[in-house]
Amino acid sequence: MIKVAIVGGTGYTGVELLRLLSTHPQAELTAITSRSLNGTPVAELFPSLRGHSQLSFCTPEIDQLAACDVVFFATPHGVAQAQVPELIKRGVRVIDLSADFRLKDISSWEQWYGQAHTAPELAELAVYGLPEVNREQIVTAQLIACPGCYPTAIQLGWVPLLEKGIVQPAELIASAASGISGAGRQGKTDLIMAENSDNFRAYSAAGHRHLPEIEQGLRQVQPRASSPAQVTFVPHLLPMIRGIHATLFARAVGQLDARELQQVFEERYKNEPFVDVMPAGCHPQTRTVRGTNMCRISVMQPQERDTVLVLSAIDNLAKGASAQAIQNMNIMFGLTETLGLDSLALLP
Amino acid sequence: MIKVAIVGGTGYTGVELLRLLSTHPQAELTAITSRSLNGTPVAELFPSLRGHSQLSFCTPEIDQLAACDVVFFATPHGVAQAQVPELIKRGVRVIDLSADFRLKDISSWEQWYGQAHTAPELAELAVYGLPEVNREQIVTAQLIACPGCYPTAIQLGWVPLLEKGIVQPAELIASAASGISGAGRQGKTDLIMAENSDNFRAYSAAGHRHLPEIEQGLRQVQPRASSPAQVTFVPHLLPMIRGIHATLFARAVGQLDARELQQVFEERYKNEPFVDVMPAGCHPQTRTVRGTNMCRISVMQPQERDTVLVLSAIDNLAKGASAQAIQNMNIMFGLTETLGLDSLALLP
Amino acid sequence: MIKVAIVGGTGYTGVELLRLLSTHPQAELTAITSRSLNGTPVAELFPSLRGHSQLSFCTPEIDQLAACDVVFFATPHGVAQAQVPELIKRGVRVIDLSADFRLKDISSWEQWYGQAHTAPELAELAVYGLPEVNREQIVTAQLIACPGCYPTAIQLGWVPLLEKGIVQPAELIASAASGISGAGRQGKTDLIMAENSDNFRAYSAAGHRHLPEIEQGLRQVQPRASSPAQVTFVPHLLPMIRGIHATLFARAVGQLDARELQQVFEERYKNEPFVDVMPAGCHPQTRTVRGTNMCRISVMQPQERDTVLVLSAIDNLAKGASAQAIQNMNIMFGLTETLGLDSLALLP
Amino acid sequence: MIKVAIVGGTGYTGVELLRLLSTHPQAELTAITSRSLNGTPVAELFPSLRGHSQLSFCTPEIDQLAACDVVFFATPHGVAQAQVPELIKRGVRVIDLSADFRLKDISSWEQWYGQAHTAPELAELAVYGLPEVNREQIVTAQLIACPGCYPTAIQLGWVPLLEKGIVQPAELIASAASGISGAGRQGKTDLIMAENSDNFRAYSAAGHRHLPEIEQGLRQVQPRASSPAQVTFVPHLLPMIRGIHATLFARAVGQLDARELQQVFEERYKNEPFVDVMPAGCHPQTRTVRGTNMCRISVMQPQERDTVLVLSAIDNLAKGASAQAIQNMNIMFGLTETLGLDSLALLP
Repeated sequence: MIKVAIVGGTGYTGVELLRLLSTHPQAELTAITSRSLNGTPVAELFPSLRGHSQLSFCTPEIDQLAACDVVFFATPHGVAQAQVPELIKRGVRVIDLSADFRLKDISSWEQWYGQAHTAPELAELAVYGLPEVNREQIVTAQLIACPGCYPTAIQLGWVPLLEKGIVQPAELIASAASGISGAGRQGKTDLIMAENSDNFRAYSAAGHRHLPEIEQGLRQVQPRASSPAQVTFVPHLLPMIRGIHATLFARAVGQLDARELQQVFEERYKNEPFVDVMPAGCHPQTRTVRGTNMCRISVMQPQERDTVLVLSAIDNLAKGASAQAIQNMNIMFGLTETLGLDSLALLP
Repeated sequence: MIKVAIVGGTGYTGVELLRLLSTHPQAELTAITSRSLNGTPVAELFPSLRGHSQLSFCTPEIDQLAACDVVFFATPHGVAQAQVPELIKRGVRVIDLSADFRLKDISSWEQWYGQAHTAPELAELAVYGLPEVNREQIVTAQLIACPGCYPTAIQLGWVPLLEKGIVQPAELIASAASGISGAGRQGKTDLIMAENSDNFRAYSAAGHRHLPEIEQGLRQVQPRASSPAQVTFVPHLLPMIRGIHATLFARAVGQLDARELQQVFEERYKNEPFVDVMPAGCHPQTRTVRGTNMCRISVMQPQERDTVLVLSAIDNLAKGASAQAIQNMNIMFGLTETLGLDSLALLP
Repeated sequence: MIKVAIVGGTGYTGVELLRLLSTHPQAELTAITSRSLNGTPVAELFPSLRGHSQLSFCTPEIDQLAACDVVFFATPHGVAQAQVPELIKRGVRVIDLSADFRLKDISSWEQWYGQAHTAPELAELAVYGLPEVNREQIVTAQLIACPGCYPTAIQLGWVPLLEKGIVQPAELIASAASGISGAGRQGKTDLIMAENSDNFRAYSAAGHRHLPEIEQGLRQVQPRASSPAQVTFVPHLLPMIRGIHATLFARAVGQLDARELQQVFEERYKNEPFVDVMPAGCHPQTRTVRGTNMCRISVMQPQERDTVLVLSAIDNLAKGASAQAIQNMNIMFGLTETLGLDSLALLP
Repeated sequence: MIKVAIVGGTGYTGVELLRLLSTHPQAELTAITSRSLNGTPVAELFPSLRGHSQLSFCTPEIDQLAACDVVFFATPHGVAQAQVPELIKRGVRVIDLSADFRLKDISSWEQWYGQAHTAPELAELAVYGLPEVNREQIVTAQLIACPGCYPTAIQLGWVPLLEKGIVQPAELIASAASGISGAGRQGKTDLIMAENSDNFRAYSAAGHRHLPEIEQGLRQVQPRASSPAQVTFVPHLLPMIRGIHATLFARAVGQLDARELQQVFEERYKNEPFVDVMPAGCHPQTRTVRGTNMCRISVMQPQERDTVLVLSAIDNLAKGASAQAIQNMNIMFGLTETLGLDSLALLP
């Protein structure tokens, strides 16, 4: 059994880790921390856990965490970079779900997140935890920077096209939408139900923190010679709880053929347990991946013109956060990659 | 491995059985029938099953069904009573999720369902599949009549009080509300989203088919001498997908004490894996049981007056239908009762 | 034109007053106050008002308010009782949407609201603004205490029965449910969409602040000799924005006849412009009153037993708050009672 | 008073016309037709109309319709082209909300709608009822083809840019999303709430019937010399009832300046009562236009790169259908353009 701790367990990625770890056959959760709720049973905060977890939140203690095989950070940005260095020094493996170690360019990180980065050497060390791209490095990584939710859906949608160099990397357009759980479990007026149900809107259209992460990831897989990937990224807020859907537009470099496009995707992902290329003509639905680690993708060529359309759907809290974190853990510890991640979406 | 078939797999109880059986370690689904979709892969109708099920819908063939250890009927009322007799004759065990065998009083059945009953002898034979009341008979039953969704939530809420005779059985009031999946997967104008989102209403308040089933179940557990249970039952339609919540009012027979009430419930359900008596003062939420076989219950005595209030929450498709059906299967085949039913609610 | 001011305009009852007053042909809004947003255009906080209101929030100034014909208070409880006395002294008429002056029994108010009442003499003076019961006193009232949302729906449902003495007043049961806008525009974790969508739950079942108001209102219309109305009141939170639905159970005193019941209601409300008694057998839906001042009511006698069932639906922010406040204003100033309140529900 | 009839009143655009006409001071609704519901009171089908309409549905009679000043068609495509010619012949003015007369290219219409067009000469005669572009022709038009919902939101978003020739017309990308009322009031499994709540998906991404209408409208306003507008249009289905949001991407022809862009929009729409250009940096929300004829638009230049982003929000049943139809009527009959259309959005 792998000994596991969670730092910062009161948010939605925390409770999703709890849900998934509770039925994981090879992981044993030993501690979950929260300074503000120290001593409170987790099942009191999340009644869905009643009968399934006897744990109480505890104050983070470095010795307790250091005794684990792996520590998940489900904290706001800025927290992991303060606490992770000591754990790394002690040889503990860390899977960080926050944004702290996602960007290799520290000045870019500092600009987008508005604060100084206190552990730039770990950002260097960290492996970006997108298994479909970086599986080999994940095996031996000591520190995983889990991808953001939008970046997961968007990169998985474009990677096959960019690797092959069949679309213009400098003219990429991503219109994406997220369920409101992506905004976290915070008491803000903007997030209350009366403000969001029966409503739809874009937000941060002038610039969202996931943009540099998306561009960094895409540039990693591009052929060297091509111009660097540049994305116009517009996120939207959906009147629902879970799910991200990305609608991705790219301009073809040469002559296109819808059948070839379909093959490019099917070939690229044929061995991936968590990417499902839909049959030609189908549209992925977020509900079919709800609560699962699956990403469903469709590729189309509307009107046989020269725009390649990719549709990509994930659960923002699962493949977009906590389930992907466990997929990383499985890879790091040599387990079957799908272990504990094989349940089906709740439908309807 | 228990060989399983599902008759009528295109509705919501059918797809929920598919979801739950797909991760059940001791059950093997061998056939799922649908006359109208014969030959269609189940994963085409329900894309959430892509990669998890290779089955296609098939026409019901008696020999194929008779080769199974157990057959689930997830059909509209009237279907099971036509097909089950032959299976029973051949020694197959049957778990019927429809209303066909729930009522012992055939004339009552015929009145509420508006048609003749063609297998009254099986209604006699059938065991009512509420494990918390009838566990022993379920072990050896050949035919299980799974309780309806409202009756499950309501009986579990009142059984402890009626067994003890501490409330007036003839003055029971149940105000209950169901998510819209309870109305099934049917293309009716009344069920479309534009008619139901941001709306709430009672329906069938003058008389709902679950009423005689509720009264029959309650009368079974009452002390003999008391007047027979009589319920005013008002169902409501909630603008959400899953969940039933029952708000139950009963008048105390003698002096009440909130602490005693709490103890009556805790004692009654202390060994029940799927009934969770909430701590005093808590209110159950439907989302904490979403996708699970759990029933969460609270009992209160508002204003210390003589009304006993019970709140009961289940998932209408899970404990209210398909998961409870699998709980029955586990009991019938001597398996651990919780097998395949231990996942947590998806929250948020 | 009636000169109007609103004190406390940043909540949902405030913006609903703004919406309704913007098309009221005889009212002119001259000021809307908010200490925290002093100077901010109302259309910046509520973009739905862009192009319809040039007003900015201002700090409440007694002289400015005193220059109005009527001042609406859309403030949290405790605020009006501090500011209203001076306005009353100066002869301004006040319509208070908060709970400050609803209860005649000051000690009850202080117990339920957990603070001392600083203007008990005004609670005495105030007229309870339920026009269907108190229309005559409203005409000449200087201070109106607008009813709460639940109390409006519940009293309108039971008044015809209690006035006639045909149900037991001491055994009343109200199971009611409200859209989440009833909880106000506050940044609380409990109110965010990810916690409330696809969820249903009771709350404050052990005792809700609207209970004493409901009982006070019912006792006012009862025949003297009968035992005082006593209500078990369980509120629930609906996963939708607007609407209150009350499901009301009462025990008949004598022999019942469904047709007579229907006549009692039709007769009682035949001249009421904002109470619609539905035809026998219909169920009111909250969406049919969305955004309107209408209350739709049905009465039934399920199974011809001795329980009288009443279903009552209103919009919690309209008839349950701001539209009823304007109905009161119309009555106070001798206008047609329906002025500015004749728009239809947005459906779907 | 203008005498008005509605042909096909049982759908959502029909009931929205009823709602808006019921408070229109210069219109008198004299007939509303439905073959299937002949004789049924409209208030029985739509209880929101109880007390506001005494009309019953009637079978369409040419003489009755011909006695009106204007007839609205709120019918499925194919119906108006059969019935309108006789009305036109008799001198009645017609406002068609269906797609029958929107496309000038009859072969394109026949290809997209899969049937022969039986009144091509009326398609020629019809004025496309987008007042912000065609106001002058609308004044004297005998037949109005009301724009589709997506085309309204999208054209209003792009018209200022295309008129000025400051974006590449051949590389336009529209990612748009609609509330489910856009799919109409039909009993289809695909539309039921259990299939659509908490879900998001694209549909008809390979080609949607509104595409040729959008391109036709944009080409009309382009400078002659430029290459014809070509759009990649991907519609999505939102888990909510009302609202369309379009996210529009265009590539700048020359150097861009965000301030100039803002001015282009403010200048273009400064006299339009129903187009609201939001302040720089704001994002329009669908709920702020719910139930109104308003279109709210924002323009941005993300990352100061060369993509011009326009966000456009309308109510699909109002500005996207019935309210715009009434705006056309007001223009045709010389009334104040905003008459009967000045109510505010219901918020929250």
